[in-house]
Amino acid sequence: RYGEAELEDQVGVVTGLAWTEVGGELLTIEGVMMPGKGRMTVTGNLKDVMKESISAAASYVRSRAVDFGIEPPLFDRRDIHVHVPEGATPKDGPSAGVAMATTITSVMTGIPIRRDIAMTGEITLRGRVLPIGGLKEKLLAAMRGGLKKVLIPEENAKDLADIPDSVKNALEIVPVSRMDEVLQHALVRQPVPIVWEEETKPVALGTEDEASGAVAH
Amino acid sequence: RYGEAELEDQVGVVTGLAWTEVGGELLTIEGVMMPGKGRMTVTGNLKDVMKESISAAASYVRSRAVDFGIEPPLFDRRDIHVHVPEGATPKDGPSAGVAMATTITSVMTGIPIRRDIAMTGEITLRGRVLPIGGLKEKLLAAMRGGLKKVLIPEENAKDLADIPDSVKNALEIVPVSRMDEVLQHALVRQPVPIVWEEETKPVALGTEDEASGAVAH
Amino acid sequence: RYGEAELEDQVGVVTGLAWTEVGGELLTIEGVMMPGKGRMTVTGNLKDVMKESISAAASYVRSRAVDFGIEPPLFDRRDIHVHVPEGATPKDGPSAGVAMATTITSVMTGIPIRRDIAMTGEITLRGRVLPIGGLKEKLLAAMRGGLKKVLIPEENAKDLADIPDSVKNALEIVPVSRMDEVLQHALVRQPVPIVWEEETKPVALGTEDEASGAVAH
Amino acid sequence: RYGEAELEDQVGVVTGLAWTEVGGELLTIEGVMMPGKGRMTVTGNLKDVMKESISAAASYVRSRAVDFGIEPPLFDRRDIHVHVPEGATPKDGPSAGVAMATTITSVMTGIPIRRDIAMTGEITLRGRVLPIGGLKEKLLAAMRGGLKKVLIPEENAKDLADIPDSVKNALEIVPVSRMDEVLQHALVRQPVPIVWEEETKPVALGTEDEASGAVAH
Amino acid sequence: RYGEAELEDQVGVVTGLAWTEVGGELLTIEGVMMPGKGRMTVTGNLKDVMKESISAAASYVRSRAVDFGIEPPLFDRRDIHVHVPEGATPKDGPSAGVAMATTITSVMTGIPIRRDIAMTGEITLRGRVLPIGGLKEKLLAAMRGGLKKVLIPEENAKDLADIPDSVKNALEIVPVSRMDEVLQHALVRQPVPIVWEEETKPVALGTEDEASGAVAH
Amino acid sequence: RYGEAELEDQVGVVTGLAWTEVGGELLTIEGVMMPGKGRMTVTGNLKDVMKESISAAASYVRSRAVDFGIEPPLFDRRDIHVHVPEGATPKDGPSAGVAMATTITSVMTGIPIRRDIAMTGEITLRGRVLPIGGLKEKLLAAMRGGLKKVLIPEENAKDLADIPDSVKNALEIVPVSRMDEVLQHALVRQPVPIVWEEETKPVALGTEDEASGAVAH
Ligand SMILES: [Ca+2]
Ligand SMILES: [Ca+2]
Ligand SMILES: [Ca+2]
Ligand SMILES: [Ca+2]
Ligand SMILES: [Ca+2]
Ligand SMILES: [Ca+2]
Ligand SMILES: [Ca+2]
Ligand SMILES: [Ca+2]
Ligand SMILES: [Ca+2]
Ligand SMILES: [Ca+2]
Ligand SMILES: [Ca+2]
Ligand SMILES: [Ca+2]
Repeated sequence: RYGEAELEDQVGVVTGLAWTEVGGELLTIEGVMMPGKGRMTVTGNLKDVMKESISAAASYVRSRAVDFGIEPPLFDRRDIHVHVPEGATPKDGPSAGVAMATTITSVMTGIPIRRDIAMTGEITLRGRVLPIGGLKEKLLAAMRGGLKKVLIPEENAKDLADIPDSVKNALEIVPVSRMDEVLQHALVRQPVPIVWEEETKPVALGTEDEASGAVAH
Repeated sequence: RYGEAELEDQVGVVTGLAWTEVGGELLTIEGVMMPGKGRMTVTGNLKDVMKESISAAASYVRSRAVDFGIEPPLFDRRDIHVHVPEGATPKDGPSAGVAMATTITSVMTGIPIRRDIAMTGEITLRGRVLPIGGLKEKLLAAMRGGLKKVLIPEENAKDLADIPDSVKNALEIVPVSRMDEVLQHALVRQPVPIVWEEETKPVALGTEDEASGAVAH
Repeated sequence: RYGEAELEDQVGVVTGLAWTEVGGELLTIEGVMMPGKGRMTVTGNLKDVMKESISAAASYVRSRAVDFGIEPPLFDRRDIHVHVPEGATPKDGPSAGVAMATTITSVMTGIPIRRDIAMTGEITLRGRVLPIGGLKEKLLAAMRGGLKKVLIPEENAKDLADIPDSVKNALEIVPVSRMDEVLQHALVRQPVPIVWEEETKPVALGTEDEASGAVAH
Repeated sequence: RYGEAELEDQVGVVTGLAWTEVGGELLTIEGVMMPGKGRMTVTGNLKDVMKESISAAASYVRSRAVDFGIEPPLFDRRDIHVHVPEGATPKDGPSAGVAMATTITSVMTGIPIRRDIAMTGEITLRGRVLPIGGLKEKLLAAMRGGLKKVLIPEENAKDLADIPDSVKNALEIVPVSRMDEVLQHALVRQPVPIVWEEETKPVALGTEDEASGAVAH
Repeated sequence: RYGEAELEDQVGVVTGLAWTEVGGELLTIEGVMMPGKGRMTVTGNLKDVMKESISAAASYVRSRAVDFGIEPPLFDRRDIHVHVPEGATPKDGPSAGVAMATTITSVMTGIPIRRDIAMTGEITLRGRVLPIGGLKEKLLAAMRGGLKKVLIPEENAKDLADIPDSVKNALEIVPVSRMDEVLQHALVRQPVPIVWEEETKPVALGTEDEASGAVAH
Repeated sequence: RYGEAELEDQVGVVTGLAWTEVGGELLTIEGVMMPGKGRMTVTGNLKDVMKESISAAASYVRSRAVDFGIEPPLFDRRDIHVHVPEGATPKDGPSAGVAMATTITSVMTGIPIRRDIAMTGEITLRGRVLPIGGLKEKLLAAMRGGLKKVLIPEENAKDLADIPDSVKNALEIVPVSRMDEVLQHALVRQPVPIVWEEETKPVALGTEDEASGAVAH
């Protein structure tokens, strides 16, 4: 059923946690990458603050590209579309930022996201995880939806005192303060950094791979 | 008469199902492809949520291009226009998403759509079919319009219990959960996947077709 | 006098029929083509539904280009401007769609439009003619303006029962269901299809015309 | 004093006639052409209908370029700015259309406009002059401002019966129905048509001017 | 202190005069030129009429480029930013037009503006100086701010009768009717015209400077 | 904890000071630079005046590029994103201008910003520091947040008389009038100017570095 945990680990699909007037809710976020020209499309009845959180997430990933094994020119040869079903429901707020960054990292690297994990947290351009509201409602939604592990902002750890034991027993709750930790938990394998030197260009036929300026570590 | 089933199978013309305050209604959706530069035009007094559903449908098709036998660069050499007559009537909502994806697949592949089929369902970027509202009214409209088969979201199958037998006898109602199934029912023949490797470029005159990087399976 | 039938057959000038609160009115629609880059300009205090009807009309013509003897690359080397005087009067609705398509076909092919014909009808991307409102008022305006022949949508033929005999005797009223019929009546001569194969490029000096990929039938 | 007839014939400066709630007023319209990329800028607190009249005027001139001795590629190598002082006063309406077309023709051809002439009239894409309102107030303003000749739309000639003899004696009032007539009166000399064939390109050094595809008649 | 006369002659910094509900005020206007692509940025909480006055000022300078010794292609290789501190205060009206033109001329030519001069006046595309309101309040502000010379529109000279002698004694008040006069007073030295012929391109190494088509007079 | 001084000197992260209805607050401002095409993105629920202050800051840095050791073409090969968390909080006003300029200088030069410094002040295109409001509340916020040094506009120095001694003892308060001073205090090392001559292009392989037109002083 839609709105529950996914059935398999997929590239570009992550479970966020939203907090609405009717309580917490799972928010499936999906991204795809296509041959293109570096355009970013965002849909799903998203309001301005959520759109900006996707923009910040994308800049975080782009500015960390080489650490994630992504050759920077790839950003200009691909289009990315981030969509948040269900399309009729308005969605807003910055708390899906870390989920957006995880989706974009996944589609750019091709590394799947663990299907049994959910996450919440605002992201900064440098990958810090900022606190969010509605922690209790979000954790209840994660439990109902059958998730196993939930990543929450480090600065919300103090709010766990108010969470019922039944929730804390059903879920592995992991406070995180940086995107590096988020990706450690969320991706099925970790990206491998490359070295990229802007000026170096691939040399004539017959040269070794190492001469191309992009070398895996 | 317009608003009834089409008289022949056509490329890019599909029958969607809308739910308005005056009941259910057939929604003819038409797409055309033209020589161009990758632009997408959408018209027919469409409101934001329906426009976004076309955007999601287009990204679904683009990201699955090779599975549908479409060489990705074709998207940059063609313009697509999706129009929903009647132009004076405002239209909104995500439930025409699967119909939009079917139209775009049809115009990009040149494969006609069966004229006696109607469909309803929200689409995700990965081709999942999400549930919709107003099932009963939509099925009644399909029956009135002379359609034979109606595709509905799997998650709406439970609502069939409330549908009168007269409707269920007149229509073949098929619950579907993924676009793959939709296309199996809707297209008069199935697209044939190709292999596409970005870096490969056609070689000099005299080479075999297989050397061009685009091989039919 | 402006607002009456034109004095000569012209390229890009057609008489549409509008229905306003003060009754029916002739709507002169004019298009011009200029050296350019494929831009489309629309002016005349046009509201969104009428603007979209021009967009649909243009896509109809572009997608049928070779049937109309237009080499597709021409669309990228020309700008088109469609204007509906009188510029101070707001204009809306889809019922000028077939007139818009006729204007655009005329400017792209250089074939003049018969000056004594008027037309009304919504257009679809595939050139179907959809029904309109205010038939009686529009026919009265055509009669007052000195037009001889009026094209109306096939689905409005049933409304002719309500039209006074004086009007039906003064005008040749022709129900049409497709743009093909509209152009048969409206253009002073019919366009001649060409064959166009995208990949073929003109060969070196000395080859025959037939080698260029664009051959008149 | 500003708001009166200019002191010398200038390229790109023309006197229009506006009709406001405080009566008629002279409207100095000025255009300049600059090295550029085909951009059109319009300023002077202009509202939508007046902006569209400039767009229609520009398309009229572009589509008649060769008749005016303008090589069409020039439109892509120049920017045009049309400004209507006084910048704090909102201005609207289509009746400055013929003045706009005169200004643009003047800046593109470099031919000055007679300083003692004023004009009013809506323009169509094909250069027809459509009727306007407020003729009496406009003529009074022209007389007060020291103009000698006023061009008015042919269809407004019937309104001259209501104009006081004092005005008709002070001004030479010329009804016109087409832009050709307007330019005959307004420009200090007439443009000389050229022949322009799109495909012809200037040949190598040493060829005659006539080989360049642009020949003055 | 900000809001008083500058301490030295600077390129691109000029003192305008504003008239607000709390009286007259000095308006420091600053422009900078940067390597770029011909973009113009305007900031400082400017409303539409003031933005348009900058646009008119820029076109005046561009259309007079060679008279000011500016090679026209420079406009495509530079970006210009005009900013009016204080950024929180909304600003509107056309009366800073001549100051805007002075700033842009200064940044394009590199010639500093005299620090002890202030100016007010609307500008036309051809560099005429049109009258403004609030002369008295503006002159009082100039006196308070320690300015020595104030340029005002010729058509406002008649308003000097109402200005107190104390103001007229403290300030040198210069009525001007054209931008040429403004620049004579405002720039520390006058620009030197060049000759520029569009078609001429610099010739091969070894030719004289004079062969380049840009010659100082 | 977010909203306090950073733990280490970072490139592109600076602490601004905001003044809201609930008092003063630290405003972390972060910038990143990415391979790109000269685009500037600004996010964080920023209103128009704050957006314009970033635009002015960016033009200040671009127009001073060579003084900061930045080769001007770098601006066209990089995108910059400036973000102000927390994304749900609207932010406005010009008083973060100097902080914005510091962030942009830091990301373009790669020089870190001292973590124990905060700053407030409007910026002009020429790098003047203009006065701000709410000095007392801002200084209290800086003290609470553990900052050591605060840069304030020279013109606000007179307001220090109203600041409690406890604040003035806890903080080193430095009045500044120009961005040069701001950067002296804020950057961990000073940028080294280069010489840049637009026309000079790197010569063939084997030439000395000095021939490239970009030489460090
Ligand atoms: Ca839901
Ligand atoms: Ca790194
Ligand atoms: Ca209907
Ligand atoms: Ca596949
Ligand atoms: Ca009329
Ligand atoms: Ca055909
Ligand atoms: Ca006036
Ligand atoms: Ca001609
Ligand atoms: Ca002030
Ligand atoms: Ca000159
Ligand atoms: Ca806070
Ligand atoms: Ca310097």
